[in-house]
Amino acid sequence: MPQPELLETFPNPYPGRDYEIHMTCEEFTSLCPLGGIESDAAELALLKGGAPDFGTIVLTYVPDRLCVELKSLKLYLWSYRQEGAFHEDVTNRILDDLVAALEPRKISVTTDWLVRGGIHTVVDAAHP
Amino acid sequence: MPQPELLETFPNPYPGRDYEIHMTCEEFTSLCPLGGIESDAAELALLKGGAPDFGTIVLTYVPDRLCVELKSLKLYLWSYRQEGAFHEDVTNRILDDLVAALEPRKISVTTDWLVRGGIHTVVDAAHP
Amino acid sequence: MPQPELLETFPNPYPGRDYEIHMTCEEFTSLCPLGGIESDAAELALLKGGAPDFGTIVLTYVPDRLCVELKSLKLYLWSYRQEGAFHEDVTNRILDDLVAALEPRKISVTTDWLVRGGIHTVVDAAHP
Amino acid sequence: MPQPELLETFPNPYPGRDYEIHMTCEEFTSLCPLGGIESDAAELALLKGGAPDFGTIVLTYVPDRLCVELKSLKLYLWSYRQEGAFHEDVTNRILDDLVAALEPRKISVTTDWLVRGGIHTVVDAAHP
Amino acid sequence: MPQPELLETFPNPYPGRDYEIHMTCEEFTSLCPLGGIESDAAELALLKGGAPDFGTIVLTYVPDRLCVELKSLKLYLWSYRQEGAFHEDVTNRILDDLVAALEPRKISVTTDWLVRGGIHTVVDAAHP
Amino acid sequence: MPQPELLETFPNPYPGRDYEIHMTCEEFTSLCPLGGIESDAAELALLKGGAPDFGTIVLTYVPDRLCVELKSLKLYLWSYRQEGAFHEDVTNRILDDLVAALEPRKISVTTDWLVRGGIHTVVDAAHP
Amino acid sequence: MPQPELLETFPNPYPGRDYEIHMTCEEFTSLCPLGGIESDAAELALLKGGAPDFGTIVLTYVPDRLCVELKSLKLYLWSYRQEGAFHEDVTNRILDDLVAALEPRKISVTTDWLVRGGIHTVVDAAHP
Amino acid sequence: MPQPELLETFPNPYPGRDYEIHMTCEEFTSLCPLGGIESDAAELALLKGGAPDFGTIVLTYVPDRLCVELKSLKLYLWSYRQEGAFHEDVTNRILDDLVAALEPRKISVTTDWLVRGGIHTVVDAAHP
Amino acid sequence: MPQPELLETFPNPYPGRDYEIHMTCEEFTSLCPLGGIESDAAELALLKGGAPDFGTIVLTYVPDRLCVELKSLKLYLWSYRQEGAFHEDVTNRILDDLVAALEPRKISVTTDWLVRGGIHTVVDAAHP
Amino acid sequence: MPQPELLETFPNPYPGRDYEIHMTCEEFTSLCPLGGIESDAAELALLKGGAPDFGTIVLTYVPDRLCVELKSLKLYLWSYRQEGAFHEDVTNRILDDLVAALEPRKISVTTDWLVRGGIHTVVDAAHP
Repeated sequence: MPQPELLETFPNPYPGRDYEIHMTCEEFTSLCPLGGIESDAAELALLKGGAPDFGTIVLTYVPDRLCVELKSLKLYLWSYRQEGAFHEDVTNRILDDLVAALEPRKISVTTDWLVRGGIHTVVDAAHP
Repeated sequence: MPQPELLETFPNPYPGRDYEIHMTCEEFTSLCPLGGIESDAAELALLKGGAPDFGTIVLTYVPDRLCVELKSLKLYLWSYRQEGAFHEDVTNRILDDLVAALEPRKISVTTDWLVRGGIHTVVDAAHP
Repeated sequence: MPQPELLETFPNPYPGRDYEIHMTCEEFTSLCPLGGIESDAAELALLKGGAPDFGTIVLTYVPDRLCVELKSLKLYLWSYRQEGAFHEDVTNRILDDLVAALEPRKISVTTDWLVRGGIHTVVDAAHP
Repeated sequence: MPQPELLETFPNPYPGRDYEIHMTCEEFTSLCPLGGIESDAAELALLKGGAPDFGTIVLTYVPDRLCVELKSLKLYLWSYRQEGAFHEDVTNRILDDLVAALEPRKISVTTDWLVRGGIHTVVDAAHP
Repeated sequence: MPQPELLETFPNPYPGRDYEIHMTCEEFTSLCPLGGIESDAAELALLKGGAPDFGTIVLTYVPDRLCVELKSLKLYLWSYRQEGAFHEDVTNRILDDLVAALEPRKISVTTDWLVRGGIHTVVDAAHP
Repeated sequence: MPQPELLETFPNPYPGRDYEIHMTCEEFTSLCPLGGIESDAAELALLKGGAPDFGTIVLTYVPDRLCVELKSLKLYLWSYRQEGAFHEDVTNRILDDLVAALEPRKISVTTDWLVRGGIHTVVDAAHP
Repeated sequence: MPQPELLETFPNPYPGRDYEIHMTCEEFTSLCPLGGIESDAAELALLKGGAPDFGTIVLTYVPDRLCVELKSLKLYLWSYRQEGAFHEDVTNRILDDLVAALEPRKISVTTDWLVRGGIHTVVDAAHP
Repeated sequence: MPQPELLETFPNPYPGRDYEIHMTCEEFTSLCPLGGIESDAAELALLKGGAPDFGTIVLTYVPDRLCVELKSLKLYLWSYRQEGAFHEDVTNRILDDLVAALEPRKISVTTDWLVRGGIHTVVDAAHP
Repeated sequence: MPQPELLETFPNPYPGRDYEIHMTCEEFTSLCPLGGIESDAAELALLKGGAPDFGTIVLTYVPDRLCVELKSLKLYLWSYRQEGAFHEDVTNRILDDLVAALEPRKISVTTDWLVRGGIHTVVDAAHP
Repeated sequence: MPQPELLETFPNPYPGRDYEIHMTCEEFTSLCPLGGIESDAAELALLKGGAPDFGTIVLTYVPDRLCVELKSLKLYLWSYRQEGAFHEDVTNRILDDLVAALEPRKISVTTDWLVRGGIHTVVDAAHP
């Protein structure tokens, strides 16, 4: 289950300047709650929860008072491993969790997913 | 025959935010109604309908109330397999079908076709 | 239905020398007889025959008395478009048809298929 | 001799929408009227007209009432094969010929030439 | 827990010819039993089993009587998702399981793992 | 210890024109004061100061009266080798040191760091 | 008309050592005598001789007493510009002309042609 | 010694239209007057003038009445070969020489230099 | 000072089979004992030991009874950070240290160094 | 004038083992004694000696008693800057000079030259 409480922060060392931090994690995996467009019921029984999805998460933000601690971000992203989640949901949920934890001046999240059914999906969301 | 009725939707889980969904399908194929610029009449008799065209479809939209269901999009794109269609038509038709099904805030469709007659064609259309 | 009778030949203009001809077609498509590992029964009913497969065919041969005519090779490969065929079958069948048509000194066929179920398959066969 | 009369058109199937068509031909060749910066008089006598130039032509336009027919564009570009033409001329002439034939809403032509004298040249022109 | 019993086979359609089948899965993930060289005890308590590893599996074999069924291979590889396994073990275990299931004429397995501790590891094993 | 006093300058030879100078150093290394997210206490005792970080520094500025001397920039960047420094700090500190030394019309610094914990970090800061 | 008499030579400056010279020309063009698989009769009437082919020529040889003079090789390759020639013929003819002119210890010629009818052709020939 | 008098021009064939000409020369070399940051005095005595620098020159302009003749540009760039010149100087000097010779509507010059002291330098200047 | 005593091993889990393990570390740095070909005495006084070198280490071995533990390999490579070492020495020393620690059936070490003085150096050594 | 006396050596630190050293210099330039196939007499008068050639030098050797000192190799390669030299000559001369200076167990030299007259030349020579 995604655990936003894993996210830790540290004080922005240069709050007087607007600057951008980009973080890219190519090792994201979650499960598709319906088993994915490529699985049938027999597979889902085996998998107990859904077919694996794999993706890359790209995060860009301008910190205000807080920066996200790198190791805690890693653990937060790992917490999606055994959870079912649609692509549109994951993207907006990571965005919401980071907005709540960091209250950044600006932030965007892009999720880029491996091909399913011959289709490659990318979702971009931003705040504000 | 292209079947827009195959397109299914699900409710946008984050309608309060403008965000973008990109979907790329590198496995599109249709037929050229005139046989293509590289075929003659003898070939067309064999092919019963036209010379194959191959392309990539790139779709980008900002959902309003509805998102397109991934598997139904795949089936919709497969429905062009045995139909004759010009490049300009395919692009605008996919755009019109998606506008009708999704009523998105913004949408664009790009089709990128394999070389014919030494010429590589790309068509971009957007709504609104 | 694959039509080996479409293959035409012309006399090798330099039969006194062993030399190699490589031909690569990135526009091959066939159907999977079982609907593919990514489709269910409802889809197959729509598709009337199977889920599309896409691949690249690479042919390398040393001609003996005959060379394959380029346009006829194109038509022969197009004849797989609406036929169900497993990856291992397609590879060996193209090889057998070319051996029968050309009686080459040496020949190999490689088929390289787009990802299905997260797995990318390549099959290599050669004669003799 | 470049033959703009080879250019044929067909009615734009979606005149109600501004959309872009991109066409790229990597197989353009013409002759340099002065023999090129890499040839001397002895070579020119052999060549009867000039040293070969090779380039890529990129065309982007928004159609109004007419679209260019693909095969006729190929023949039009082939008509430069034995003609002497400077890079700046070719670019503007192709642009003028397409403006005359299509009366597009917008159009641009880029020509990208293989290295001559260690220098790689690209020319971009647009209308209006 | 890795489940070799998931592997299913079908009869080799061309047993009279030695030919090669290559299968590449870029979506493999397992857990490191010790938590990985980049995790500490606090992380492992959260993860209940180990830190995620990500890799690509490349399989090449010459079938004898049997070929591996693609969907069953996918499910077999998924069965490593929540299991701890060292890189050297995973490679040799997949090899052993495929040898047992397929009795191929020749087979090799390569595993290529994402960077851990600044080091990129690849393991190659073959039978016989 | 980072030594801004190593930075030397020379007079801008073209102060009458705004022009940009870009300098990229792919050979930057520093230490992480906490040992990095991939090290434990035993490692830090060995390392006496922190785990190594590696990155690329990209500097772009419009000179006013002064340009930075290339060799002195190299020595300044080398002075981070045995110092602990967080990514956000390094970026803003290099920016501040260059602003102090050069008083440029505009300047930006980007630092691009090798993957730690599966996450790739880039930091962009600019003045003014 | 291909003119082997254009080929000029100079004495090998190091005949005591076997060493290799590789020459690659990406600017080769000839005509297809039958108009190519992509042209019809109306086009051929316009073209007076055939549809253009474009390719790259790669030549590798170990000189014996003679080396080929670079400029003369360029002129020899230009002499194919308005001549009809099949791919297999061009390759073997260039090989034969160079064998006759240079009497090299070893030589190979590869021709790599732009896609025609969706098929990319490469021909390799060697002497002895 | 750089020789701007080598630059020759020809009349712009399409002065009624603003269009862009890009010229890239990857074969630029000059000397560093101080020997470069990688040479010592003993080396300079040998070199009689400085350590070699290598770079790429990219020129983009909108012609007014005049275009630069390609061969004369090549000779002008060659005239830097045995001259000492700093990166910032070379860039602005080439720009000034071209402004004087062509009086273009717009022009920019980029110089991109091979790594010295582990640092890669690019300089961009434009007029007006 | 390089510390081979940091290298730890674990028992080869599959000693009955010859298989290969490849490990690549792109984060290696050491010092050049003479200051490098790009530094002078004033720089060396600042650096207290030498100019930085950066490289990639590639290790391939067939284990016998022992495999190298990944984290200990990382620490061993880090131990070169403040030591002067020539390229040829580093390569052979790493090879000797690994032969002593692992007694592998076969092993090779490649070191690939960033450009110094415009020259890129790679050293390959193997045992036995 | 090429100066082999610039080449300095140091004792091979591991003479008991056959190992390979590769050195690549992408910054080689010399002059063509005849002005190059792209220059005429007027140009040569300006250039006083020939048209510039640019290339990459790749050297691979197994040292016996001696290794080449990196800085001296750089100076030796610089000594070709103002000398006329044919491609075949440069390659064999560098090889001969290194054989004389190093008496290596094995050595090869490859020179890879920028395009002249549309032709890209590479020369490989080895000893013994």
